[in-house]
Amino acid sequence: MALNYPNFGFDITHRDKKSGARLGLLKTPHGSIETPNYIFCGTKAAIKAMSPKQMREVGTDIILSNTYHLMLQPGADLIQKMGGLHRFTGWDGPMLTDSGGFQVFSLGEGTMANEIKGKNKGHDNQSLTSITEEGCVFRSYVDGRKIKLTPESAMEIQRKLGADLLMQFDECTPYHVDKNYTARSMEMSIRWGDRCLAEFERHDNGAQSLYGIIQGGVYEDLRRISAEYTKDRPFFGTAVGGCLGGSDEEMELVVRASLPHAHPDRPVHFLGIGQIKDIFRFVRLGVDTFDCVIPTRLARHGTAFMKGVPGETINLKNARYREDNTPLDEENGVDASCNFSKAYIHHLLKAKEVLAIQILTAHNIATINRLMREVRAAIKAGTLDVLEKEWLP
Amino acid sequence: MALNYPNFGFDITHRDKKSGARLGLLKTPHGSIETPNYIFCGTKAAIKAMSPKQMREVGTDIILSNTYHLMLQPGADLIQKMGGLHRFTGWDGPMLTDSGGFQVFSLGEGTMANEIKGKNKGHDNQSLTSITEEGCVFRSYVDGRKIKLTPESAMEIQRKLGADLLMQFDECTPYHVDKNYTARSMEMSIRWGDRCLAEFERHDNGAQSLYGIIQGGVYEDLRRISAEYTKDRPFFGTAVGGCLGGSDEEMELVVRASLPHAHPDRPVHFLGIGQIKDIFRFVRLGVDTFDCVIPTRLARHGTAFMKGVPGETINLKNARYREDNTPLDEENGVDASCNFSKAYIHHLLKAKEVLAIQILTAHNIATINRLMREVRAAIKAGTLDVLEKEWLP
Repeated sequence: MALNYPNFGFDITHRDKKSGARLGLLKTPHGSIETPNYIFCGTKAAIKAMSPKQMREVGTDIILSNTYHLMLQPGADLIQKMGGLHRFTGWDGPMLTDSGGFQVFSLGEGTMANEIKGKNKGHDNQSLTSITEEGCVFRSYVDGRKIKLTPESAMEIQRKLGADLLMQFDECTPYHVDKNYTARSMEMSIRWGDRCLAEFERHDNGAQSLYGIIQGGVYEDLRRISAEYTKDRPFFGTAVGGCLGGSDEEMELVVRASLPHAHPDRPVHFLGIGQIKDIFRFVRLGVDTFDCVIPTRLARHGTAFMKGVPGETINLKNARYREDNTPLDEENGVDASCNFSKAYIHHLLKAKEVLAIQILTAHNIATINRLMREVRAAIKAGTLDVLEKEWLP
Repeated sequence: MALNYPNFGFDITHRDKKSGARLGLLKTPHGSIETPNYIFCGTKAAIKAMSPKQMREVGTDIILSNTYHLMLQPGADLIQKMGGLHRFTGWDGPMLTDSGGFQVFSLGEGTMANEIKGKNKGHDNQSLTSITEEGCVFRSYVDGRKIKLTPESAMEIQRKLGADLLMQFDECTPYHVDKNYTARSMEMSIRWGDRCLAEFERHDNGAQSLYGIIQGGVYEDLRRISAEYTKDRPFFGTAVGGCLGGSDEEMELVVRASLPHAHPDRPVHFLGIGQIKDIFRFVRLGVDTFDCVIPTRLARHGTAFMKGVPGETINLKNARYREDNTPLDEENGVDASCNFSKAYIHHLLKAKEVLAIQILTAHNIATINRLMREVRAAIKAGTLDVLEKEWLP
């Protein structure tokens, strides 16, 4: 294949001596970012409660949007007509889109409410009509119409959306299926990956790049097969996806079974994972980028990520903050973290003022961006263990 | 009385030759503002969807908070303990608080929802238990407990809140009562005004100033009596309040019946009024400051204030904006007005993304602040009529 991604690059600039952690520079047509880094979720072409300017002010390098939501509303054609996601949203830095598969297979009814409230366990997927070799059919959560998503259409939609980093279409297998199902599914995702590559290449103009996704559930042998597949194909990057098990240990097993067999020189993205403890655990295994909704989602529940706090977070709704005149964290150096007392944020939450969400979202993103800056500095200095103890005492 | 407000001042710097419009400089311990100016509503100690820093970025000079809401949640004692409203909210410019009276008498059940949705017409005030010479008793919308508000307690609460510009406690008479009731009510508000002055003076340390409020409904003779009362007493400023009638004409009649009898050298505030057409109408009658929730409230309904648009506003939910790639108004010179297409804001509204509210709120406040800057320049240049045609074709 002729895919060589001339406008993209990934340079590994430093390797940790004590672990698999590495520093890299990920180049895209919309700028380069240092890795390890964190990709914040702008599900519906917007980070909840943050403008692009505000995202930059809190140190953000890269964001993502979700193909599933955007194909339904406002539709990929409209976004293409408006000049693509960068022009539409005003975010001028690197951007990633997923393939839509995760939401189709896991969200079921597809309401963000269920996702946001953690109520959807993937077991009552009533909107998913069929999964065949060709692709899948599901019902739109916006208007109920039936929609077919295939490897080819997932590529077409992502092409129209115009992000820098694209994901192959894959089947996202749930936790409760058996190994046989997981194996057949993983093999279909491999065939879907080849169709994505073919479709991607057909329209490739150098503006975008494609990641392959390692599937295989919690089964080491399946993960290895899937990882070797991605390595052998001309993907730009490697993503670890699908079912990661029910515990931190299973999640680590999955990554340990996958990455040694993936392409060693490509950027590695870990799909949907990103608590502070996960960052420390998985940069050591060679993960370069993370994405997760929790920095923004937890903010909407009154929760602030904090450096050096047991359990990573505090909840500002707690009555203990009613008269706490201290700011969240002056070391963050941003307005949200420095210029509002916990007592004021507590009041705003009680009064249901949206400013509380804005402050906590900005603070959480600033905190995670600072975490990533400190992680990169610690990898360079060989002090990742020390840093981890500072963040997670 | 010894009230002389040493840390406050109001200098009338220019008078329009063709109308009663005037330019002024209103000095407070938290800075001076040029008038005419617009006071934005931060009901619960927060402008909805805007931080103080963001308020400054869109050109804001002065904001207000509502005594009624803050006395119930989080309580004046807490805000005092946290250093007062300026310290609590982070807003370091001039600030006004009302007396709580308007909400007690007009909001009834007291839910902001009713106020926001325009559902409360003041006829089903079930939370107001009694109005006597001493004051009034109402039930908290937060927890149902009975609360007494008197001239003295309204002053005490506002002293603890710590704003610069305070309002006397008055009875806000509804539109449907007769002239006799309105007259008796206005007379009681006069007695309440004297009690407010006495209580204010008892604790005066120079940090705050007090406005008298002209009541009297839509009756010219009552308005005159009330205006002359405020003129004769040592208030720092004059506010026009109460029932303003059911039409623009009645509202103008009320102001025309009031202001010629008020103190000519004091700043004049018009309570709760502030559409663009109102600004042009009432600066000509000598109003110096306005406040109204509509710039922020209408933003939450998808509505943008626009210069030169019939009816003052457009609604971005309208399907005509689905593919409109133009920004709201680049002349405003702020991020919200310049860097997002109407199509994008339309999408955000359809997707129920809070960023839509943030963008429209910032745009509306920027637009009104620009209006006030242009109004001041036009008063100076004697071109108010020309400017009005530009804004309201």
